[in-house]
Amino acid sequence: MAAILFSVSRSLWNPRYERFRKSKFTTHYPARTVASSSAAFSKMSAIHQILSTSISSSASAFIGGHTNLKSATKSSNFAVAGKISGVVKCVASAAEKTAYTTKVSRNENMAKLQAGYLFPEIARRRAAHMLKYPDAKVISLGIGDTTEPIPDVITSAMSKRSFALSTFDGYSGYGAEQGEKQLRAAIASTYYGDLGIQEDDIFVSDGAKSDISRLQVLFGSNVTMAVQDPSYPAYVDSSVILGQTGQFQKDVEKFENIEYMRCTPENGFFPDLSTVRRTDIIFFCSPNNPTGYSASREQLTKLVQFAKENGSIIVYDSAYAMYVSDDSPKSIFEIPGAKEVALEVSSFSKYAGFTGVRLGWTAIPKELLYSDGFPVAKDFNRIVCTCFNGASNVAQAGGLACVSAEGIKAMHEVVGFYKENTSIIVDTFNSLGFKVYGGKNAPYVWVHFPGQSSWEVFGEILEKTHVVTTPGSGFGPAGEGFIRVSAFGHRENVLEACRRFKQLYK
Amino acid sequence: MAAILFSVSRSLWNPRYERFRKSKFTTHYPARTVASSSAAFSKMSAIHQILSTSISSSASAFIGGHTNLKSATKSSNFAVAGKISGVVKCVASAAEKTAYTTKVSRNENMAKLQAGYLFPEIARRRAAHMLKYPDAKVISLGIGDTTEPIPDVITSAMSKRSFALSTFDGYSGYGAEQGEKQLRAAIASTYYGDLGIQEDDIFVSDGAKSDISRLQVLFGSNVTMAVQDPSYPAYVDSSVILGQTGQFQKDVEKFENIEYMRCTPENGFFPDLSTVRRTDIIFFCSPNNPTGYSASREQLTKLVQFAKENGSIIVYDSAYAMYVSDDSPKSIFEIPGAKEVALEVSSFSKYAGFTGVRLGWTAIPKELLYSDGFPVAKDFNRIVCTCFNGASNVAQAGGLACVSAEGIKAMHEVVGFYKENTSIIVDTFNSLGFKVYGGKNAPYVWVHFPGQSSWEVFGEILEKTHVVTTPGSGFGPAGEGFIRVSAFGHRENVLEACRRFKQLYK
Repeated sequence: MAAILFSVSRSLWNPRYERFRKSKFTTHYPARTVASSSAAFSKMSAIHQILSTSISSSASAFIGGHTNLKSATKSSNFAVAGKISGVVKCVASAAEKTAYTTKVSRNENMAKLQAGYLFPEIARRRAAHMLKYPDAKVISLGIGDTTEPIPDVITSAMSKRSFALSTFDGYSGYGAEQGEKQLRAAIASTYYGDLGIQEDDIFVSDGAKSDISRLQVLFGSNVTMAVQDPSYPAYVDSSVILGQTGQFQKDVEKFENIEYMRCTPENGFFPDLSTVRRTDIIFFCSPNNPTGYSASREQLTKLVQFAKENGSIIVYDSAYAMYVSDDSPKSIFEIPGAKEVALEVSSFSKYAGFTGVRLGWTAIPKELLYSDGFPVAKDFNRIVCTCFNGASNVAQAGGLACVSAEGIKAMHEVVGFYKENTSIIVDTFNSLGFKVYGGKNAPYVWVHFPGQSSWEVFGEILEKTHVVTTPGSGFGPAGEGFIRVSAFGHRENVLEACRRFKQLYK
Repeated sequence: MAAILFSVSRSLWNPRYERFRKSKFTTHYPARTVASSSAAFSKMSAIHQILSTSISSSASAFIGGHTNLKSATKSSNFAVAGKISGVVKCVASAAEKTAYTTKVSRNENMAKLQAGYLFPEIARRRAAHMLKYPDAKVISLGIGDTTEPIPDVITSAMSKRSFALSTFDGYSGYGAEQGEKQLRAAIASTYYGDLGIQEDDIFVSDGAKSDISRLQVLFGSNVTMAVQDPSYPAYVDSSVILGQTGQFQKDVEKFENIEYMRCTPENGFFPDLSTVRRTDIIFFCSPNNPTGYSASREQLTKLVQFAKENGSIIVYDSAYAMYVSDDSPKSIFEIPGAKEVALEVSSFSKYAGFTGVRLGWTAIPKELLYSDGFPVAKDFNRIVCTCFNGASNVAQAGGLACVSAEGIKAMHEVVGFYKENTSIIVDTFNSLGFKVYGGKNAPYVWVHFPGQSSWEVFGEILEKTHVVTTPGSGFGPAGEGFIRVSAFGHRENVLEACRRFKQLYK
């Protein structure tokens, strides 16, 4: 009882507590149809469950914006070793027992993080919208989650492996933490051909997001970091968690000690490297999430040269490489000399619809060395062996099917389908007179709303069309004024969303 | 070419470089049978591949023991920004090009780690043994890897889910990072019944090892840590990686700033808490790996009281709870007040044979608060959302089948089988006059060889019986003089291993 009161009272003065409570709900509330009455009831009650705490106790607190934990703690002199301040007491019953607190200090890096992770925050707003408009057919072109079934050739292999685990001959326990030998070899040959990446340079993972975090653990807290601005939020947030940054600077919407490489229409979405400060690590995603822009061979050559001059390590995210239609490189290792300054993170998520199956990889060339000559791959191997136990054997069986001849063909069909969606979205916004970027080599369309706030545009689109997009500013300050429209969706939903956009912006 | 020479030359002066290169190979070399001639050939060539580098270039270096990278760097003035020292040049050809190094400093915490992670090191020695005795039928009772097929009821669910992913209705993309709602609820009710752990306290993971590492990221580098001595090596190694420790102290075989809680026959394998220094975090595994000993209700009550007095957080590892035969608690939350000072990590690995499927969970009560009153679970939720993307949906389908009525029955049968193995091993060593510990509530038997070195006993057993065990000192200094014998194995292998033990020690 004391704990419950305590929790409610906290949410009154700090909205972040409640915002963190629940995460992503997209899978529970399919966008496709308005459900039948009983399903609609359970949908509604689930949404009620999600929102009940914040609605009943902290709805008004959301309006207050970003109350900072540190300042709140300071001003209220809160929770000093088991004591509860007046802020809490004012809503606590007289019979309340003081809540026990440990003497372990909260990791100060966690407190630096801003609000919720972007996508759970969008899911929260979407759920609130569905509560407001229970009959609306909400369409999600937001989070970038794949929607199309996985090709049979791949799920058959997974199913077969699952069954085999019930047999003496087919059972397998702990696999190599780095992944099954055959899969590592197949990834090396499929995606790196003659680029000089070998089987033992490939570390199979449960996805790029997990590997980005493991790479941050590898590098530790004493490195400096650059990211494209805008970029996938996990780079910055994992950097903050590992303690590589200072505090968030509200005036510029940036974390101290992270170098934000501005990518806008003005510079063709490629940073002006002459203005970029030297950092140890450079996160670079191409084709880019969220701008959908892919760097050219010349640009990547400049990037590699820049890293080499500075002695930096590029963490290259190629999760969308199969979406490239022109001659943009699909791997950083296509650039001569890149193996001495880069490693590459990739994933089956957006190729085979593996967002839920979880399978990716990181390629680290033997040539990539720390300043003392120690190979980066050897330390990463140790990280993988200590902090991970390999990807699921069933997912790996699926991965092996992905890179079979038939699987590659099937993945290209999946990618092709989403690329058609992309064209539909690009054409729609073009026809409405918007400046539209990306979409050619990536499943993301980056629409410009000059002078407007991304969150306001996001809110207007949601309110008036029931379509969920992603506000560009969620990816970094240079994303302000943009909206990311994802091409992952069933065709009829993409067409319907585009009809509604035309209605709204005609 | 330069890079190759460079790599070879490095291994000449630092054996750790080569030791890190390869990890665990048990799945590639089944212990069961001597393979047919062609399979034997490929087996042999694979072993050659594993060992070739170290044999050709650094075999002698292994004898040199633990050359410390830091001191080696100092003495040779090695690799200062692209320059190569004399140590390297002496084996490099005249035409050698200087290897490029980045200017990124190696994470100094990585350099603190000792040799390889324990189990890859054992795999290396096993592979070397197989090369020496190609005709030997090697039996592994070492790493603790499950060997028995997964019950049909579980793999059927995984197979069904795999197939469903190829259908419009059955497809699922990103799931909640915390795990599927139904599975979280089922884990809460199955393993925590009326202990007050709710669905939203459960975070489904890809296994306990990954979660231990995520917990370390959660706590950050400024906490202090206690572990049972001996204990599962991932606790200490992940603590070192996160920077919570000082250097390794060779004289006592301990890392500076970690509190090693000695657990030996003298104290009934439960630490004398009156001598234990206060730390922020206490890792505690019961039933214990490696000693096989489970703490009683009275002992755990003392532990919870100790944590409460100190304001510490217990990270309780209950991965072997289903092996408990007596009335030892199966969860720390059975102890009154534990929810204010403990969280619990667990896994399906040793219940359902999921070591390769990868599925576990962490339970964090809402009552567990940092010193400022902030709930630990809310920060962990943020870690899970930023550094992880949920366990594989297929593995989660398997997990849901595990905790069905039929699944629980099937898991008890699997556990029962391994417990029979345990009895066979315990009886064997007892009959040979050894002091034997554990084995009652855990699949591990802890055999005492007083006055002997664990690695020497390990070596003798391997050499004379072709059975792989685990040297107790690999789990901490208090494990010296012990051998851990794992009960995970096919029955005929366990019986055969025991026959060989009887032959050796008769």
